[in-house]
Amino acid sequence: MKTITLADIEAMDKHVRVQFANSLPGPKPVSLIGSIDAEHRTNLAPFSTVTHLGSNPALIGLVSRPDLVGRHTLSNILATRSYTINHIHPGILHQAHACSARHPRDVSEFGATGLTPHFEENIAAPFVSEARLRIALELVDTMTIPANGTVLIIGKVVLVQLPGHSLAEDGSIDLFALDSLASTALDTYYKISDPTRLTYAKAKPMD
Amino acid sequence: MKTITLADIEAMDKHVRVQFANSLPGPKPVSLIGSIDAEHRTNLAPFSTVTHLGSNPALIGLVSRPDLVGRHTLSNILATRSYTINHIHPGILHQAHACSARHPRDVSEFGATGLTPHFEENIAAPFVSEARLRIALELVDTMTIPANGTVLIIGKVVLVQLPGHSLAEDGSIDLFALDSLASTALDTYYKISDPTRLTYAKAKPMD
Repeated sequence: MKTITLADIEAMDKHVRVQFANSLPGPKPVSLIGSIDAEHRTNLAPFSTVTHLGSNPALIGLVSRPDLVGRHTLSNILATRSYTINHIHPGILHQAHACSARHPRDVSEFGATGLTPHFEENIAAPFVSEARLRIALELVDTMTIPANGTVLIIGKVVLVQLPGHSLAEDGSIDLFALDSLASTALDTYYKISDPTRLTYAKAKPMD
Repeated sequence: MKTITLADIEAMDKHVRVQFANSLPGPKPVSLIGSIDAEHRTNLAPFSTVTHLGSNPALIGLVSRPDLVGRHTLSNILATRSYTINHIHPGILHQAHACSARHPRDVSEFGATGLTPHFEENIAAPFVSEARLRIALELVDTMTIPANGTVLIIGKVVLVQLPGHSLAEDGSIDLFALDSLASTALDTYYKISDPTRLTYAKAKPMD
């Protein structure tokens, strides 16, 4: 085993450290976040920081860099309090990855990549029509992380769309059937395979 | 496509809603969190809320339920400010899953499952010797999420151990070679396959 110390990390070239730090969590969820501004300009951006925060209500976290110029997703969410999470499958991977390019605000990533916006009544933000699992959220709260100024966006799930066959009676969703992708670092994607479901773990009775 | 509304989610049986909400983020990272209390009693627990928060310094988030009786990981981290993240591979999956059982504080999940603790100088928390990617963190901050009382634990990476061949010169880590697992819901695990690395996305020049 190779050991990398804090001094080694601090001495890394900036781009190397970014790839390294972004690899450490393990396989990450990756989704397109759909949003819209007050002038009805749509935006799509890939994020790999979607995190389960709670089930009742169903809350999901999303981490954004600080609200600097060009962070369209965060500023749109603050403006309209509405956003969507759209899982990525291999059929839209290249288009999804292309959404990470820096487009000016007037250029929608939908138009630039050929993905199709889908709207639902009473939900401001656009979904990705091609996505197989689409989630609409309503902004609940944002919290700035003092250590580096990044922002945790906390949203409540208000609508979910998915193929009926992928939802089991016990509430679990068959991500393998949906071919939902995982990611690592900034540029690498994985399929998921070999699902293993284990039974609820119980401690052995004490002797 | 099937549409599930907020009213549908609220009407779900509690266990169904837990599986459903825990499936929504997509394939999640899953690791064993190693910790220790002030009396040197070790603890291991699987978490699927490990999130990248920043690269300089390298910061990682971890979401825990509130500090109630029995949340040994959170109370240990608050006591010693030290913890480890240990990726799970198929060879230790059943042992790792068994760590989710409720053991009394006097029973270490190491002893109960047969996993081997590994210690490094100046790091209080135990690593999992069998893990192929091990990360030590120092507690930086905790933030309570007002919406449901869960706690975001923010840690700084202070040591990483991994097989030398899995670390590329550009800083990325080959999670596929390490066979790091992903997870969904509360009980399902996936292998990752078919790595696809895409080039940096640039916007097309405007006409």
